[in-house]
Amino acid sequence: MRDALFYLDRDSDLNLQTQIRQKLVDGITSGAFPPNTRLPSSRKLAQQLNVSRNTVVAVYQELVADGYIVSRQRSGIFVGDALPDSKVAGRVTDEVDKTAQLLVWRNRIKHERISESEAHDLPNWSNYPFPFIDGKFDASLFPLAEWREASKLALSVAAVEEWSTGSVDADDAMLVHEIRTKFLTRRGIQAGPDEVLVTLGTQNSLYLISQLLADRTTTVGIEEPGNFRLRRLLEDRGARIRPQPVDENGLRVDRGLAGCDWVYVTPSHQVPTAVAMPGKRRRALVAAAAKHDFLIVEDDYECELNYDARPEPAIHSMDADGRVIYVAELAKVLAPGLRLGFIVANAALIRQARNLRRTLSSSPPLNNQRVAAYFLSLGYYDAMMMRLSKVLRRRRLELRDALSNMRGVPLRISPEVGGTTYWVKAPKQFNVDYFVQEAAQHGVLLEPVAQYYSNTQRAENCFRMGVTSIPQDRIVRGVKRLVELIRYLVRGQVEHLDSAAGVWLRGSDLLQAMSGATVYYEEVYGTLCTIELHPDGSMSGRMSSDSNDCDEGTWRVEGDRFLRRWNRWNYATESAYYIVLDDERIKYFNEDRQIVDSARIELAD
Amino acid sequence: MRDALFYLDRDSDLNLQTQIRQKLVDGITSGAFPPNTRLPSSRKLAQQLNVSRNTVVAVYQELVADGYIVSRQRSGIFVGDALPDSKVAGRVTDEVDKTAQLLVWRNRIKHERISESEAHDLPNWSNYPFPFIDGKFDASLFPLAEWREASKLALSVAAVEEWSTGSVDADDAMLVHEIRTKFLTRRGIQAGPDEVLVTLGTQNSLYLISQLLADRTTTVGIEEPGNFRLRRLLEDRGARIRPQPVDENGLRVDRGLAGCDWVYVTPSHQVPTAVAMPGKRRRALVAAAAKHDFLIVEDDYECELNYDARPEPAIHSMDADGRVIYVAELAKVLAPGLRLGFIVANAALIRQARNLRRTLSSSPPLNNQRVAAYFLSLGYYDAMMMRLSKVLRRRRLELRDALSNMRGVPLRISPEVGGTTYWVKAPKQFNVDYFVQEAAQHGVLLEPVAQYYSNTQRAENCFRMGVTSIPQDRIVRGVKRLVELIRYLVRGQVEHLDSAAGVWLRGSDLLQAMSGATVYYEEVYGTLCTIELHPDGSMSGRMSSDSNDCDEGTWRVEGDRFLRRWNRWNYATESAYYIVLDDERIKYFNEDRQIVDSARIELAD
Repeated sequence: MRDALFYLDRDSDLNLQTQIRQKLVDGITSGAFPPNTRLPSSRKLAQQLNVSRNTVVAVYQELVADGYIVSRQRSGIFVGDALPDSKVAGRVTDEVDKTAQLLVWRNRIKHERISESEAHDLPNWSNYPFPFIDGKFDASLFPLAEWREASKLALSVAAVEEWSTGSVDADDAMLVHEIRTKFLTRRGIQAGPDEVLVTLGTQNSLYLISQLLADRTTTVGIEEPGNFRLRRLLEDRGARIRPQPVDENGLRVDRGLAGCDWVYVTPSHQVPTAVAMPGKRRRALVAAAAKHDFLIVEDDYECELNYDARPEPAIHSMDADGRVIYVAELAKVLAPGLRLGFIVANAALIRQARNLRRTLSSSPPLNNQRVAAYFLSLGYYDAMMMRLSKVLRRRRLELRDALSNMRGVPLRISPEVGGTTYWVKAPKQFNVDYFVQEAAQHGVLLEPVAQYYSNTQRAENCFRMGVTSIPQDRIVRGVKRLVELIRYLVRGQVEHLDSAAGVWLRGSDLLQAMSGATVYYEEVYGTLCTIELHPDGSMSGRMSSDSNDCDEGTWRVEGDRFLRRWNRWNYATESAYYIVLDDERIKYFNEDRQIVDSARIELAD
Repeated sequence: MRDALFYLDRDSDLNLQTQIRQKLVDGITSGAFPPNTRLPSSRKLAQQLNVSRNTVVAVYQELVADGYIVSRQRSGIFVGDALPDSKVAGRVTDEVDKTAQLLVWRNRIKHERISESEAHDLPNWSNYPFPFIDGKFDASLFPLAEWREASKLALSVAAVEEWSTGSVDADDAMLVHEIRTKFLTRRGIQAGPDEVLVTLGTQNSLYLISQLLADRTTTVGIEEPGNFRLRRLLEDRGARIRPQPVDENGLRVDRGLAGCDWVYVTPSHQVPTAVAMPGKRRRALVAAAAKHDFLIVEDDYECELNYDARPEPAIHSMDADGRVIYVAELAKVLAPGLRLGFIVANAALIRQARNLRRTLSSSPPLNNQRVAAYFLSLGYYDAMMMRLSKVLRRRRLELRDALSNMRGVPLRISPEVGGTTYWVKAPKQFNVDYFVQEAAQHGVLLEPVAQYYSNTQRAENCFRMGVTSIPQDRIVRGVKRLVELIRYLVRGQVEHLDSAAGVWLRGSDLLQAMSGATVYYEEVYGTLCTIELHPDGSMSGRMSSDSNDCDEGTWRVEGDRFLRRWNRWNYATESAYYIVLDDERIKYFNEDRQIVDSARIELAD
């Protein structure tokens, strides 16, 4: 026996006793310590590892009880010989012939249409300094203490006994109760226990639904842009897909829906544009469904993150015919640790979905169902969502302000009422796909949107920026890096001071023009912002979207440059610009003499 | 506010603090305690509930931190008003019209072939006193302490951080490592990380495989009797199914396999007959696969419960061409709490299976993957399997002995080498389906086997009895109840002493005939048992299947009855019989004068 059997990692998350157990078991099962090997005495091993002898004694006692090692009177501690064989036979055959394998496998796979991994599902996203991607959550948001508490309760003797008597078909009754009373009622939905099926999340729900409700004879209306994963499921089923446009109120309800067997809609936050569907449009959709006899699959994506507006009740609650199949999932921040969702629908459909679920696997793991049930029942879920809403709202404001402060960059963000992402529009000539790749090279992750379109030719020149995965204190720096990249990419394409159309205002001309002028911005958040430059060198600004969002500041002219500083806006830093007046427009140029912004201006009389 | 806000359950598994929190949250979210309701002071609530004031104070502090309640200076504790609405709108529409719903749903479901719930998946099996069903585990077998320990480790900060950075595609690298080094090596399999996919268990694995490898152009060989769930998956895919008979060495390897695209086999314990496939047959199957160019799907069901024989290595380890797709799952005793399995195959297939898995859901919950990884890594899994093997072996011996001691009942059990079930054959005229139903009425759960046959007309007249779900001390009582039921059902059909063929031996004739006779039983475990009745009133018995299984006892004649008592066999109780000699056979009749057993006899010269 060598002197040093193994080494411990003092920085490990595992305590010393656990580490010692792990290393001994590894050595025994791998065959490194074969049966009947004599192990060091507890005193000696404790010395070697520099741990207390009690620690080693405790591990040895456990391993004796488990049969890994045996203690022989007056001889010492030995590796047991009654263990399962660690290796039955090794590989019985000769080395594998890779060419033969290729031949064997040629043309075996029947399901060729399944696409390869999605480009933006970056397994190592957290290594990027500025991950503006939606649906991933930085670990700081995970409610660790509460989750542990709920896990502990779900591991009680009584709870474990309940699992083990469960069938492969039944969901945890406690979880179904909590979903009905704490989640669905808040969405206006009254559902019986036989109208709820627990799933492994919304993707899993949509898989079951598309298997049950789509085949070659089916026509499905789906938002354009919309959920590409559902579109692929429907393609696999051979269904006809009818893309239906999305406007600022979500899915358009018009004659395009006639002839659909069912229609998929994401009313709380449309995927991917994040617009919300108002009550009027929801009722129109329900009426159209009755008129044209189609079903509605309502994906209540991010229904719980509506910090800017009072949420509309679910479409499911507006429908008396039972035409609506409602799907939602527990907040993604808990995934991938816990990925649980549910389908709420007519009991007949739920029964069929349960039968189908059995052929796929079984009910989602009952231990996780019970943990989630306690998590809801103890109010940890609501408390987490309240905390999360605050954090994400702050992050989103930070992103909005950062984007709007980096003026002169040709990007626009859409107005929307909550959610965790911005839909960012780039100018037509901007190659977004190339830009997203370049940004990733510079450590900034953005989500391209072409995949959301059934016809990528019609895709808007947009990308998405989300805030679930990036800590607040990195947002401004991330946007700065993005803006630098944009400026670099568009150099040469942007207007230059020396060749700008209009009149370059300098010195006293500049001072005179600006005194008493009013500037109207039409691109901040897509809405109007008005700035008054008072002759006394003060200025005031007001957002028309939010009458409370005002600021005061000072402006002055220094040589040929116009300087201004807000009390709060733009991080209260002073900015300096060269100014060109072009008909009714004012153009701002930075120190590099590149245009960074423009607006409509009314000069003083 | 009423005096008694709610009541606590002193017998609950939850501690008082958790209960108080749960009840308060329930009241607040359900609207029973509306916003701004004043709650009792901590002192008063503690009095009402008869708990310590500190307990209530702790709950109030948590709920204040979570925003459920607010503490107002000098006024008291109130329900918060900044909570998410508990009910958005109730059901917006009128009452649901069930008839209209039926019309809406008529002909919507496309997937009609999905069968209803399986008859024997009894969700309340644990309410039966004698559940002889396989695959369910009584709660006493769950390794609660070790599972809790592994769960705690998986909830460490570092572990949670790893989950949350995971992609939807990746499995837990630690679990994949543990499966490769602690599970697969023991089955003789060397597999790279890209050759392993974690699934939600074998059903989930077979679903993925049937989606990938079967369509209308595919022919699949499947054991007869065999896995009916796979057969249904293949029917759904439209594949041609070729049933291939099973003999005492498992799947028959003959020309019936030619023309198959792939062949499904359960070599460790054939489902449902529990026979094991010897190495020679395994090698013949691999050779046939190469000759006829088919793939093998090897379901290594219960490979870890081989207490009677040295396990054969997996077929996967015998194949150089990469033709074998290996599926297995972590011991079912951990399910349904944890249902995890894996596919081991060619990396190209694994990549496709991973893509398909993504369309269904995502990787199995990563928290469970990590718990399982720790469970394996700390040796808890092996220790559990060793304990489990011992317990189940004892139970199975108990069942074997009970069945063979209840002689005269026309059932035979098959010889097999491990596993957790017996394949029990009834006589041809016995209606097994009716019997299984009647047995359940009497509290004894058996598993019928017709569903395992593709052609139920060819089904053997058998049922299965398993020992995973019944505690050892109930086995003998359960078998007794079963035997009583059989005797009741076959009354009238059994030979009666008063009308028996042969000579009824009485008094001294009986004594003379038995002295020095040798009796040969041919039905104990399907093998021979020999009993010698010595003239001195002693007797000796020997099982030919096991030369160590001998016993001694005494016999005598009292009036017209023959009495015997073994020292160990038959629970060392004395049995009394009337005896009829019919040519070379001895027939035993019980006190009710019904035949209970017969054997070949050689009288003394």
